[in-house]
Amino acid sequence: MTDLKRRLLDRIGEDLAAIESALAQNLTPYLDLVSETARYILFSGGKRLRPLLMVLSARLCGYSGKKDKKFSTIFEYLHAATLLHDDLVDGAAVRRGKPVAHSVYGNETAVLVGDFLLARSLSIAAETGLLEVIQAIALITENMSQGEIEQLSKKGSLSLTEADYLQIIENKTAGLIRGACRVGGLVAGASKTQVRRLSDFGYRLGIAFQMADDLLDYVADSRLLGKEVGADLREGKLTLPVIHALSQAEPADRDRMVEIIQGKHFDPADFSDLVRLLDHYGGIAYTREKASGFVGSAKEALSGFEPSTTKKTLMMIADYALARQY
Amino acid sequence: MTDLKRRLLDRIGEDLAAIESALAQNLTPYLDLVSETARYILFSGGKRLRPLLMVLSARLCGYSGKKDKKFSTIFEYLHAATLLHDDLVDGAAVRRGKPVAHSVYGNETAVLVGDFLLARSLSIAAETGLLEVIQAIALITENMSQGEIEQLSKKGSLSLTEADYLQIIENKTAGLIRGACRVGGLVAGASKTQVRRLSDFGYRLGIAFQMADDLLDYVADSRLLGKEVGADLREGKLTLPVIHALSQAEPADRDRMVEIIQGKHFDPADFSDLVRLLDHYGGIAYTREKASGFVGSAKEALSGFEPSTTKKTLMMIADYALARQY
Repeated sequence: MTDLKRRLLDRIGEDLAAIESALAQNLTPYLDLVSETARYILFSGGKRLRPLLMVLSARLCGYSGKKDKKFSTIFEYLHAATLLHDDLVDGAAVRRGKPVAHSVYGNETAVLVGDFLLARSLSIAAETGLLEVIQAIALITENMSQGEIEQLSKKGSLSLTEADYLQIIENKTAGLIRGACRVGGLVAGASKTQVRRLSDFGYRLGIAFQMADDLLDYVADSRLLGKEVGADLREGKLTLPVIHALSQAEPADRDRMVEIIQGKHFDPADFSDLVRLLDHYGGIAYTREKASGFVGSAKEALSGFEPSTTKKTLMMIADYALARQY
Repeated sequence: MTDLKRRLLDRIGEDLAAIESALAQNLTPYLDLVSETARYILFSGGKRLRPLLMVLSARLCGYSGKKDKKFSTIFEYLHAATLLHDDLVDGAAVRRGKPVAHSVYGNETAVLVGDFLLARSLSIAAETGLLEVIQAIALITENMSQGEIEQLSKKGSLSLTEADYLQIIENKTAGLIRGACRVGGLVAGASKTQVRRLSDFGYRLGIAFQMADDLLDYVADSRLLGKEVGADLREGKLTLPVIHALSQAEPADRDRMVEIIQGKHFDPADFSDLVRLLDHYGGIAYTREKASGFVGSAKEALSGFEPSTTKKTLMMIADYALARQY
């Protein structure tokens, strides 16, 4: 475990434990199969980034109520709902080192339990009593489904640009993370300015987080990652490291990359070859640099808040988004 | 066209046209594929029962605003979302005379456009500004997904009781229809008593409507129905006509029915045989009687409202639920 991770866990351990317990308590299905399937996806080693960000954002704005953990489940339930549906849509096989839920419980159950989690998330949003919160969650859900459809419809397309990629990750990832931070401010009754700062922080952190995630698909240790490296490529998803490297490559190298990408059933040697080319044409460095830029501007967005332990923790989370190894 | 249907259409034609236009206007996706898929399921000859009931319920309680048609889309979008997911889950082939959406656009798109419609429905619910409405919609969505899972997990089970059946159709159908009537009252600012009456009306009508639907699967003309008769049975769904007849049959006839039911690939002669046995053991008559009882008690629930054109229309809709031939 890295030093940053250890220090961060010291700070957030108590919150994480309370979030775990809220996640178990607020599920309340009446069918055992729903409970079992939802638990399979919910309690499989997720990082709880989204609920944690909500709780910390609320605290940063002086929230002193007792419902922050409950409200934070909105973001993990919604996240889990999209994981269930997206894994199915993407034909994924493994998540967090375990077979994906639809291969264990069947496609039908994965679709319907995803619907249940989505609805549960909106029910809890309604409990905040804040229309702005409810509207935000509904809109995020609309955008996440459209982001996934856009990614799906552009599957394998070599003409995907960096701008297309940004739009997709905004809808698929950054919107929800922004929402978690923003809703933290809203439930704390923060000022518009503070809510906007949190919103900016969340958006930028979300973009950085997804870029780091996309990098890990090429550079991580697959045992730590909990899935095979190269999974995105197998699913036909072109992410920034590839998009950038393709745009920079000499024709012969570009042809070789395209051959590997379109082959899909590439062997480990092909994959090493591709990673070498991504590296050679700066795809890895460029993505890391971009992500690092977003981490920096995310932290800047918090500059208007007074120094506090909570602010420091949020800053550390931003750094960790990039530093994490899986 | 029956006389009742013609008289009913005279009364509701204008509302239906306004609902159609609201359904087209409030979809607002940014992707063409979402729009195309959503339109495929939305504009394929649905009866618009749910939005119509909301509009009429609001009017019965004196609603005079301009947003009733917009709010009514909540119920059709949500209904369409569940049709997309349920057809996929049930492995259905044909709906309203056309191939099901997932066979045209792919399973992936059907899942994600369903999510989009569900989220859209909740966004519009949030626009009512009424927490009670939003909570109702979120809870209905939770229950519909659980109802479908329950049906799925009991697929082909011969031990399904009438009570199980009632619980399933309450969650899958009656909850949404009750919600449409109840929300009509809520947006009109009706009294608690009036809202409860509308709620009772919707629930009972919804149960009757689903029972009639389940009957049609055995007795309808398949050209009018827009799908093959016997589709429920092919999907392993035991509905009231079968549940009742099985409970009444002599051992030899029961064995024959079970053989046909479990065969699934029954030919037309098997199916006629089954319908004959359903009829012989009162499954058809019993279901029609039960549905008729719910129609009667639905109409009674409205007895506290003053006589009006709108009330009369709602009464006619209740009668039509049972009289319809497809």
